[in-house]
Amino acid sequence: MKKILPLIPLLFLTACSTQNLRGTGDMGLIIERAIGQVQLVEHSGNTSLATIKGLGDLSHASIVYSRDERYGYVFGRDGGLTKIDILEQKIVKRVMQSGNSIGGAISQDGKLIAVSNYKPGGVKIFNSDSLELVADIPAIYAEGKQSKTVGLIDAPGQIFAFGLYDAGEIWVVDMKDIKSPVITKFKDVGSLPYDGLVTPDGRYYIAGLFGEDGLAMLDLWHLEKGVTRIMNHYGKGKTKLPVYKMPHLEGWAKAGDKILLPAVGQHEVLVMDQNWKQVKAIPVHGQPIFVMSRPDHKQMWVNFAHPRNDTIQVIDTETLKIIKTLKPGKAVLHMEFSPRGEHVWMSVRDENRVDVVDTETFEVVKSLKADKPSGIFFTNRAHKIGL
Amino acid sequence: MKKILPLIPLLFLTACSTQNLRGTGDMGLIIERAIGQVQLVEHSGNTSLATIKGLGDLSHASIVYSRDERYGYVFGRDGGLTKIDILEQKIVKRVMQSGNSIGGAISQDGKLIAVSNYKPGGVKIFNSDSLELVADIPAIYAEGKQSKTVGLIDAPGQIFAFGLYDAGEIWVVDMKDIKSPVITKFKDVGSLPYDGLVTPDGRYYIAGLFGEDGLAMLDLWHLEKGVTRIMNHYGKGKTKLPVYKMPHLEGWAKAGDKILLPAVGQHEVLVMDQNWKQVKAIPVHGQPIFVMSRPDHKQMWVNFAHPRNDTIQVIDTETLKIIKTLKPGKAVLHMEFSPRGEHVWMSVRDENRVDVVDTETFEVVKSLKADKPSGIFFTNRAHKIGL
Repeated sequence: MKKILPLIPLLFLTACSTQNLRGTGDMGLIIERAIGQVQLVEHSGNTSLATIKGLGDLSHASIVYSRDERYGYVFGRDGGLTKIDILEQKIVKRVMQSGNSIGGAISQDGKLIAVSNYKPGGVKIFNSDSLELVADIPAIYAEGKQSKTVGLIDAPGQIFAFGLYDAGEIWVVDMKDIKSPVITKFKDVGSLPYDGLVTPDGRYYIAGLFGEDGLAMLDLWHLEKGVTRIMNHYGKGKTKLPVYKMPHLEGWAKAGDKILLPAVGQHEVLVMDQNWKQVKAIPVHGQPIFVMSRPDHKQMWVNFAHPRNDTIQVIDTETLKIIKTLKPGKAVLHMEFSPRGEHVWMSVRDENRVDVVDTETFEVVKSLKADKPSGIFFTNRAHKIGL
Repeated sequence: MKKILPLIPLLFLTACSTQNLRGTGDMGLIIERAIGQVQLVEHSGNTSLATIKGLGDLSHASIVYSRDERYGYVFGRDGGLTKIDILEQKIVKRVMQSGNSIGGAISQDGKLIAVSNYKPGGVKIFNSDSLELVADIPAIYAEGKQSKTVGLIDAPGQIFAFGLYDAGEIWVVDMKDIKSPVITKFKDVGSLPYDGLVTPDGRYYIAGLFGEDGLAMLDLWHLEKGVTRIMNHYGKGKTKLPVYKMPHLEGWAKAGDKILLPAVGQHEVLVMDQNWKQVKAIPVHGQPIFVMSRPDHKQMWVNFAHPRNDTIQVIDTETLKIIKTLKPGKAVLHMEFSPRGEHVWMSVRDENRVDVVDTETFEVVKSLKADKPSGIFFTNRAHKIGL
């Protein structure tokens, strides 16, 4: 017996290979939207590590990461919530939590995953470990009326905030006591809030309005002040062009005392000051979708709506001038910077390619094959408020 | 022979257990300065995982992390540079690279480690993988004169910047071509630069002066503008108290349009506006050492110099008032926030304890034993410019 015992620990090692033993700070997942899979990558050597299949409908899918940067939570369009282990390169758990969903968030402490649902309209909150339901918050805003929810974000203090598209409301959910969520409801914030963002410090929640001009803003440090309106001309007011795609509000970026944001329907990037007043409009190649800051805020990278989505433009934040126009190829849908900003990855959907671009020389340093790639999500998002 | 072969892969697995297979985004190292070891911790469950011994003199030691968050590089006072694998919980490599050193930095791309040396005065730059010497930059500023180097930081574009204490100079090293470092030297920046910091966007390098009042500032986006002087009364000008310890310049914090920094020798935290002008002085418990922003910038946490170092004060950034005074115990040397700010860890050196404190309730949620703990360094620093 004594001679056999030392062998037993070796048997338990079969699930762990030295290939899998690695730090997770430089990893990421790319949505391959058409075939319901994600590609696992790493950005130290800019290589593909694996593909993980079986994630359902991934159009408009997004991902958040666990605080240890081991697990990715994929929010699919079909209501699927999938937990992926990026070390074991496999699905840990998958639940169909609604019929139609649109994005999610992870709580400040990493213990809760919230999902924004269209059908049935509301937000469901899950235990991030087990994916068991912790709280179900149907967005019932009047007798027999239930709204789609949109623009779900997390903020410090175990807060989730989201908009009710059909109701014109913003709800803030405090999950400090998971058994008794405290919901604060803001009514009449404006017509058809269609997306939302939180500033990088987690303080201001801002909702875009599809039904009217302007933006609805809520100071999460001072809920008692209620919702105020900013940028009253933002939106449809000036629109002369058809709006091909509403811009992503998370594509806002701050550089020093300037905030840059995509105009709706116009070929312009707008510049706001710290009082949320527009001070400039920068003419650009098309209708901007994402306006993304390089991590050092020296450059803003902009992509565009169809039919002008083969182009990327780079704005210098000091001069507010375009310093580079790139033509990566058809349908550049998303960008993600390496954490310290030396590279940016971009999905070129219709060319089945992801390019890694040097942000100083603008040269393509690497191209990876990918099947109709859309969103790119690196694990360092785990450490960022609101992402 | 064929029957023996399948056993060989198993032998290679002995270094890898399922215990070690984990994400690295929630890990950290704590300096146990007196006995030359570090304690490995994780902040999801707030537990200690291991201790790693044999690191030499760790007084004033600091740590940076590889971009994959697997390796910590420990800069010891005795010139030792030690690379630690936090997954395998062991020293990978250790080199004695000088006789006396003071801190280091990692390049934007993660491939270079720079160390600031007192003896012999200069900066050495190593390959982060192998710890082989890549560049040796002796700080020779005049015939036969070599200076201590201080305040070494990294910035975007493979930049390192540091001060020459004895020379009153700031040098900026561009390591884009590792075979040909480009060094730009700024002379007569002020007397005895003793420490330096870079703003979180990597743009402004600021050196404190021991020999005179004021601070030397360099805009790394515009080296052609040269060094300018800010805060002309900062330093010894008003000092009536003996200076027990010079504040750490990396203990600067920005909240909205305000910058808070520790006064030298005074029981004050100073508030600057965005033009680097002092607008207020907040009376505090003692001579401040670190003024650290909670990640959402809603609070600043301050520790103090001996003999008042048993206290922590918390400043609300909206009102600039002290909202809490804590008495953790003797010699609170350092603090580190969890990435999204719900907790702060603090070293209580003379009580051999590290406390984990809830930043909303101010309650101690966990205490860990540690041998004379000083610096606490979490792996999410890997993703931050200048850290």
